[in-house]
Amino acid sequence: MKELYWIAVDWGSSNLRVWALDKRHKILDSFSSSDGMLSLEIVEFEPLLLEKISNWVAGDVNIPVLCCGMVGAKQGWLEAPYATVPYNLMQDTDSVKVICRDNRLDVRILGGLKQNNPADVMRGEETQIRGFLSVFSDFDGIICLPGTHTKWVHVSAGEVVSFRTFISGELFALMSNYSVLKYSVNSDGWSDQEFKSAVSESISNPQKIFSDFFKLRADDLLNKVAKSVLRSKLSGYIIGAELAGAKPYWLGQNVVILADNNLSKTYKAALEGQGIFAQEVDATKCTLDGLSQAFSLIHGRH
Amino acid sequence: MKELYWIAVDWGSSNLRVWALDKRHKILDSFSSSDGMLSLEIVEFEPLLLEKISNWVAGDVNIPVLCCGMVGAKQGWLEAPYATVPYNLMQDTDSVKVICRDNRLDVRILGGLKQNNPADVMRGEETQIRGFLSVFSDFDGIICLPGTHTKWVHVSAGEVVSFRTFISGELFALMSNYSVLKYSVNSDGWSDQEFKSAVSESISNPQKIFSDFFKLRADDLLNKVAKSVLRSKLSGYIIGAELAGAKPYWLGQNVVILADNNLSKTYKAALEGQGIFAQEVDATKCTLDGLSQAFSLIHGRH
Repeated sequence: MKELYWIAVDWGSSNLRVWALDKRHKILDSFSSSDGMLSLEIVEFEPLLLEKISNWVAGDVNIPVLCCGMVGAKQGWLEAPYATVPYNLMQDTDSVKVICRDNRLDVRILGGLKQNNPADVMRGEETQIRGFLSVFSDFDGIICLPGTHTKWVHVSAGEVVSFRTFISGELFALMSNYSVLKYSVNSDGWSDQEFKSAVSESISNPQKIFSDFFKLRADDLLNKVAKSVLRSKLSGYIIGAELAGAKPYWLGQNVVILADNNLSKTYKAALEGQGIFAQEVDATKCTLDGLSQAFSLIHGRH
Repeated sequence: MKELYWIAVDWGSSNLRVWALDKRHKILDSFSSSDGMLSLEIVEFEPLLLEKISNWVAGDVNIPVLCCGMVGAKQGWLEAPYATVPYNLMQDTDSVKVICRDNRLDVRILGGLKQNNPADVMRGEETQIRGFLSVFSDFDGIICLPGTHTKWVHVSAGEVVSFRTFISGELFALMSNYSVLKYSVNSDGWSDQEFKSAVSESISNPQKIFSDFFKLRADDLLNKVAKSVLRSKLSGYIIGAELAGAKPYWLGQNVVILADNNLSKTYKAALEGQGIFAQEVDATKCTLDGLSQAFSLIHGRH
């Protein structure tokens, strides 16, 4: 590929996304696959990446490859240490160099961020935030990144000041797939109204969450409540309890939601019920912008 | 078996317990097995029970068998309807008769209890409470039945007045076996001090529970905190949030814990941290006493 200048890689737990880019970070080609780091042994990363990008690099030598995400975890390709918050994403970038067998590749992996007290970690989200800040450099406020492990991040003057992770997404998946509720919430339907009212209930009384969960089962058994309603309520109770816990982050703040799926709308609706009008931002674009920004910092091009 | 007068059965989701009893409800023999109702099809209940008790009933005719527990659920042997609280366990007993192929058996299944608002159900616990009340007939207060789905039950003048179920036990199992925490809490060890301090934190701030969960993971990654400590904290956070939600039940009340495993000590310790000195009661004895009491009500013997 004639104009190929570098390759950007977002390598998460369950997915791999790769972009071929030119000197101006313009996309020449891209692909995604389900070869997440959790499904790979350490010796499999290089051959897999090489195979996937073989039609891009044929004949080329020493192509820079920059990766972010769980690929840098202890169980990944090579452990990229966490930098500590507060951390200035616009000035600093930390990465590790991977020694590859094939010298056509010059691979670096970006490190995640850690917070000492309360203990917390992120890996991948820092790159999305970097991408967001590369466009909105003056942003001061809160970035919410919904997902399996939702992050609430305080950003000011280009710095990640502090953050908290909530396990809500994973909890919703466990409750709806493995718990006594699995048959009661087994539906693709959705009720925005039931969701919002459950969010409000749970924000006001987060301590009721574990009895609220069982109430869903009882409402199924005794009142034959529709599964779509029960599913919306389960989500509402969980996100409501999360919002109660994350209140110091969003209350009276400027909030942006950085996501690329339905979850963005769900969190937006939940926050609106609390009088917070959050902006939604495209996460895939932020990831690529963040990798581009980090590439420029590492390779001295601005 | 010469003196055999009736057979008591506690048939739960995962286990079966059976007692052979004489006229005075004295135990002649007993056994337990892992043939819980969840592992059985409807046509398998009668043959299984017959096979297990064949050496008791040989030659006998029309032996009364009284069952409690999930065997009376929709997916069980025969659905035994829920009675509605308030319900007087000392005066009333509701059961259904199972038509068996083998006429040596005269089987009845006790029904559970339901509460309309907030919706809630129990199946099996009502028999344990009945057994407790058959001994402590003047008890007025709260019975806590810890387990997969922990119940807090208000009892007065022989009546179950109201109750709430918390999904805490199941949540602990899901978090420790299937979530991102599974490697961090993988320990048999226990720290009473860490448990109690987590209970207190969580009672004061139940809305932090989903970030507290993730903090356990981060404390493992960043601070190499011992897995036994993380496991004790996970339990403490969950039970603390439950106690926060169940406060209207235990605050300033007379509390009894009805359980037959370590969970009893765990709940006792958690409540003591809140100034509540709960009595522990043996659950197996309560189950058998409850079945005996119900048998006497049904068959007119007191």
